[in-house]
Amino acid sequence: MQAQPITVAYGDGIGPEIMQATLDIILAAGAQLAIDTIEIGEAVYLRGNTAGIDPSAWDSLRRTKVFLKAPITTPQGGGFKSLNVTTRKMLGLYANIRPCVSYSPYVHTKHPVMDVVIIRENEEDLYAGIEHQQTPEVVQCLKLISRPGCEKIVRYAFEYARRYGRKKVTCFTKDNIMKQTDGLFHRVFDEVGVEYPELEKEHWIVDIGAAKLADTPELFDVIVMPNLYGDILSDVAAQIAGSVGLAGSANIGEEVAMFEAIHGSAPRRAGQNLANPSGLLLGAVMMLVHIGQGAVAEKVHNAWLKTLEDGVHTYDIFEPGVSTEKVGTREFAQA
Amino acid sequence: MQAQPITVAYGDGIGPEIMQATLDIILAAGAQLAIDTIEIGEAVYLRGNTAGIDPSAWDSLRRTKVFLKAPITTPQGGGFKSLNVTTRKMLGLYANIRPCVSYSPYVHTKHPVMDVVIIRENEEDLYAGIEHQQTPEVVQCLKLISRPGCEKIVRYAFEYARRYGRKKVTCFTKDNIMKQTDGLFHRVFDEVGVEYPELEKEHWIVDIGAAKLADTPELFDVIVMPNLYGDILSDVAAQIAGSVGLAGSANIGEEVAMFEAIHGSAPRRAGQNLANPSGLLLGAVMMLVHIGQGAVAEKVHNAWLKTLEDGVHTYDIFEPGVSTEKVGTREFAQA
Ligand SMILES: CC(C)[C@H](C(=O)O)[C@@H](O)C(=O)O
Ligand SMILES: CC(C)[C@H](C(=O)O)[C@@H](O)C(=O)O
Repeated sequence: MQAQPITVAYGDGIGPEIMQATLDIILAAGAQLAIDTIEIGEAVYLRGNTAGIDPSAWDSLRRTKVFLKAPITTPQGGGFKSLNVTTRKMLGLYANIRPCVSYSPYVHTKHPVMDVVIIRENEEDLYAGIEHQQTPEVVQCLKLISRPGCEKIVRYAFEYARRYGRKKVTCFTKDNIMKQTDGLFHRVFDEVGVEYPELEKEHWIVDIGAAKLADTPELFDVIVMPNLYGDILSDVAAQIAGSVGLAGSANIGEEVAMFEAIHGSAPRRAGQNLANPSGLLLGAVMMLVHIGQGAVAEKVHNAWLKTLEDGVHTYDIFEPGVSTEKVGTREFAQA
Repeated sequence: MQAQPITVAYGDGIGPEIMQATLDIILAAGAQLAIDTIEIGEAVYLRGNTAGIDPSAWDSLRRTKVFLKAPITTPQGGGFKSLNVTTRKMLGLYANIRPCVSYSPYVHTKHPVMDVVIIRENEEDLYAGIEHQQTPEVVQCLKLISRPGCEKIVRYAFEYARRYGRKKVTCFTKDNIMKQTDGLFHRVFDEVGVEYPELEKEHWIVDIGAAKLADTPELFDVIVMPNLYGDILSDVAAQIAGSVGLAGSANIGEEVAMFEAIHGSAPRRAGQNLANPSGLLLGAVMMLVHIGQGAVAEKVHNAWLKTLEDGVHTYDIFEPGVSTEKVGTREFAQA
């Protein structure tokens, strides 16, 4: 197997710890990687680069086309744009894939039968970042939806469902209120859906759809939705499946793909060997599949499941009666 | 006790059935009401009035200032604006109060300890209804947030918490991305909060806040948020507490107040004596408190609880082992 060039950023807060743990695990499992490390996040800001990323980092990303990224911190206040959002835009990462799976009985959840993949549009919507003050008392933010944007994400969702043998694709919008913007998303879903006759298709208004998802997630399979709903509901789905700390995500573009945990950099827990590396590790598993090292991905995933099954849990998912051993980041990785 | 003039609309779908049941119950319990009935909804549309409401109806509402409204249907497609939204705007109903309470063990829920009140801003945000097509491929919707709007709703939430002896008010926004619009809401929350030193205050980014709410609702007390988040998360909270069918809501303005169920008109279940009148009934209970008939409100609420406790349940919350009797709308009301 040839070594695959990848770009790695250790991030902020608990980032460095969980990245080290993740790389240790996947390299031990036989991943063949040529790692290029870049700096991105708070440290770069604090050196006076307000973009939070060195221009040279983009070169690395454009060369390797595969990015494993630890959580980063965006400094509060000031005029900073979110670096997470900037990265997605600069690299054209239009699809955000977030599998939310229950690992019951090994991880406590009220929803033991859950295997939902949220496919979130990742570039448009209120995340376009167009905000302005209209009068001293009125501010506005623009929600922007484009037909090509809808087509790309909706097609991605259907292709994903087909590739992974999923049965149903559900679409969430609020098109009873936003008839033009969310209406376009829904319409494109219906149009593109016709090309996938083998898949079941359904649409829910996002309020009641979210309620069903939070209450009976076993009703859902693949769900595709605009950016902001996807942001909120992937956190909901990941949390009720077990913990946002257990979810990895893939950000897919035409050229580059980025893999990360869905949780943040948790600065208060940094440097204490406390953090659960699972989210980033599962992001890395998705990366290994993406770069064609599926056998290694499976090995890592199985080892991770085995560790959970053995009851070796970090503090965040530790549950008396289910867990046998409470461990730190390093010990979890060794297990 | 003097009869209180109120305006009533029977609505569409299951509306007439559940309104009849609700009025029967509260009148039997001794509510003193002078009822003025108006027509609003699909029937009015279909007669060719595309606003879905007769101009004379506004006169009734401005006179009585109290509105008990059954769910209505907005015809699909076409250029209709949602009549629900129009009503809220025309009457200046800036605050939408949605209590989400568990009735465990009488109603099945995975969250037995839950008593959350969601206070949703009801006029601004993406509901301002400003949408347009920018190019053939790009559509936009404007999210509008004003300082007076934020001040009204945030103050309402703190006053509500103080009046009802609540301990904590939580604010949800996405101000890490929408720094100006959601940032203003958050800032006003912090500013106004200072005037309520006895209340605990906290703010969550809406994604992780929603995840916590869906997973551990017992962490929350009163939650105030912009319109669209409130729309989605009040459905989530009501559903995980038991059912969206069990939640009533109050829409409060400077002059007029409107009371309703949070669910829709469920046209497929209409006319079958199936529907659960509980949501509208609990809306009516909030109305009775609002018009100073608190003793009647308590009587109705207790009788309703007793009926649930006796296991007399409509189809939607029927649960073998908990329910003793499965009944229709009329029988539920009699019980
Ligand atoms: C950190 C933040 C900008 C980001 C988002 O809103 O997309 C995060 O919540 C996520 O879901 O990846
Ligand atoms: C019917 C619809 C316009 C309404 C809303 O979006 O506000 C409903 O979902 C609600 O929550 O009352």
